[in-house]
Amino acid sequence: MDFIKTPTKGMRDLLPNDMELREYVLSLMNDVYQKFGFELIQTPVVEHIENLTSKQGGENEKLIFKILKRGEKLKQGNVIDVINEDFDTFVDSGLRYDLTVPLARFYANNNSSLATPFRAFQKGNVYRAERSQKGRFREFMQCDLDILGEKTNLAEIELICAVTEFLKALHFENFTIRLNDRRILMKMAEYVKFPLKDIDSVLISLDKLDKIGKDGVKEELLSLGFLESQIDEYLQLVMQDTSSLEEYCKTFHMEEDVVNNLKEIMLATQNITSAHLVFDPTLVRGMGYYTGPIFEISVEDLPFAIGGGGRYDHMIEKFAHFSVPACGFSVGFERLLLLLEERGFTIPKKDEKVAYIFSSDEKKNEVLKIANQEREKNKIVKVLYRSKNFKFQKESLEKEGYQVLEY
Amino acid sequence: MDFIKTPTKGMRDLLPNDMELREYVLSLMNDVYQKFGFELIQTPVVEHIENLTSKQGGENEKLIFKILKRGEKLKQGNVIDVINEDFDTFVDSGLRYDLTVPLARFYANNNSSLATPFRAFQKGNVYRAERSQKGRFREFMQCDLDILGEKTNLAEIELICAVTEFLKALHFENFTIRLNDRRILMKMAEYVKFPLKDIDSVLISLDKLDKIGKDGVKEELLSLGFLESQIDEYLQLVMQDTSSLEEYCKTFHMEEDVVNNLKEIMLATQNITSAHLVFDPTLVRGMGYYTGPIFEISVEDLPFAIGGGGRYDHMIEKFAHFSVPACGFSVGFERLLLLLEERGFTIPKKDEKVAYIFSSDEKKNEVLKIANQEREKNKIVKVLYRSKNFKFQKESLEKEGYQVLEY
Repeated sequence: MDFIKTPTKGMRDLLPNDMELREYVLSLMNDVYQKFGFELIQTPVVEHIENLTSKQGGENEKLIFKILKRGEKLKQGNVIDVINEDFDTFVDSGLRYDLTVPLARFYANNNSSLATPFRAFQKGNVYRAERSQKGRFREFMQCDLDILGEKTNLAEIELICAVTEFLKALHFENFTIRLNDRRILMKMAEYVKFPLKDIDSVLISLDKLDKIGKDGVKEELLSLGFLESQIDEYLQLVMQDTSSLEEYCKTFHMEEDVVNNLKEIMLATQNITSAHLVFDPTLVRGMGYYTGPIFEISVEDLPFAIGGGGRYDHMIEKFAHFSVPACGFSVGFERLLLLLEERGFTIPKKDEKVAYIFSSDEKKNEVLKIANQEREKNKIVKVLYRSKNFKFQKESLEKEGYQVLEY
Repeated sequence: MDFIKTPTKGMRDLLPNDMELREYVLSLMNDVYQKFGFELIQTPVVEHIENLTSKQGGENEKLIFKILKRGEKLKQGNVIDVINEDFDTFVDSGLRYDLTVPLARFYANNNSSLATPFRAFQKGNVYRAERSQKGRFREFMQCDLDILGEKTNLAEIELICAVTEFLKALHFENFTIRLNDRRILMKMAEYVKFPLKDIDSVLISLDKLDKIGKDGVKEELLSLGFLESQIDEYLQLVMQDTSSLEEYCKTFHMEEDVVNNLKEIMLATQNITSAHLVFDPTLVRGMGYYTGPIFEISVEDLPFAIGGGGRYDHMIEKFAHFSVPACGFSVGFERLLLLLEERGFTIPKKDEKVAYIFSSDEKKNEVLKIANQEREKNKIVKVLYRSKNFKFQKESLEKEGYQVLEY
């Protein structure tokens, strides 16, 4: 077999410049989140196939990189399964497609050693065998914040404040945070008497409102077989024009505590972050596991969200066999990096770089000694033999930011 | 299927305390290596199966986690192969078992965008489906330094200095660096006329000298079918008692430049690091790809090496179809962490930690505001509702290092 020098499809080699920016952003994130008492944890990228295919992952479960069993266990696999194109008997694990399923497993496994409430910070690669397209990778980093064991909106407030603080540290401004509550979405759909089992597909259509417009959503719902009168009533309800959260929710008799909870979150975060908080009844967020408030953050005048999250009070119990309220917020790390690159973001204050060039072996030990003395002064120092094409050598080093000194 | 709350076999959940130490050591490593002009790069953990099974990985190739093809390509797999227990037609990639194969691929793929010589720093997880045993994991971190494109011993010297500097920063002392040269090992074996094709297995036996002793090695070589007279001559040659590298090597007519090269490395690094440098003709190091000097570093009076490396001038060309001299040094990161934990290593200077406890909703917004002001002063701050069992809550927080303030 011949060697292949490109990375596997959809994955990337990260070069020094890429890594420098990534490491800078991660270390900033680390500093900010730590100040909020979040603690870094880590789970393996390899997860039990049972946990990955538990219906918690939605569409992502179709994109799993599956790992073959090994040794004798592999040989027990069934030939009939291969003929039927069912390979699951040969598989015992897979690469995680998000950090939420592993977090739930982690908490179930380790909660007795963790603080209550537990403020978790995860940064790690996840894997999805998606069709290749620009800006989408099959290995990419996710950075998740979660608070487990906090049933009050203190969780939502602190999560939103921490993420806003982090984005401020990257010099982003004018934050807009859109909020909704999964229970409001459910209530509206129930109010117009969509069958409970169909609400998920109604919400999937509603989620496309900003892309396909009101008419597009209506068309999609019609094609799903809902009654036109019901759809019209629903869309009127969703798109009622009032800036007051209370007034809006009164129409379909939303429970007061849900409304007050959202109001509290908006008030508290507005106070602290100076972000622009808006109630957005069309905010859906894909994952079905959300149970309460959901939110997205966008910066300046960019049309897309740079992060989002919400409350998912019933997910952990599926792993843990005990119930734990939970709320999470995740920043789209790869999207954030792309954005910083597009804006020509430069990393502040770098250490001084010096390259010592020498041309004879006799000078080597002397140069090495000086180099190490300079390193003790926190300079970045390279030592190099003078190359035949010195002009090119010097230019290349200067391009890398090195001051070139000949010896 | 039921959820499984433990990690997959041989892999680990890393808790906040584990991560704190890891991150501290990694950031220290980063700082030190950066001062030597090493640049951080990253490759995917998923690698082409062709590259992983290229015979560069030795025994590790038997321990690969293999990834199933997806979609239509998976269905092309052959049932006959399953009956023959050969699953390779179903596999297109696997998890990397080291960082050397990916580095070679990376350099072949990206060398035109990289400095010459290129000083690479990699930190990343690797995967080996080893039998579980204490202190061995199936997912573990490797931290590799490599210099590509430097044919002189400047590479060896700078690598040894960088690693020593890093270990010093962790307060290790009394470094011993044992050196040998693959060419010396070859020459001795050739000198007693072991057939060239058998030299690898001779070296595998020699490598066990410190474990099974001279008689053990002799026995093993006898059982491999070598002549007793030849074995005796070989072991006499290897174990000759002289402190002089030159004298030692004269016996079997070793080429002078190989000897001088080792002498230069020893002299230069001794000067800079104040490490104890010793020529050790029984140092083998497993990987067959080494072509020149090889070395291991140990600290204080510990019986095992904490890192090692060597020159491998002909490996990259197998990927790149061009030749590049290369030299690497890798610290056993997981072993190092275990060692630090055993010694009760404590991370210096931590930020101040404060926990604000409040008991009424009215105080929440006030506390949140104060919390954020304190965070701006670089304090680590948690806000919590007063729990019913306040005594326990306070004690737990204090154990985590928080100063508890009631509001």
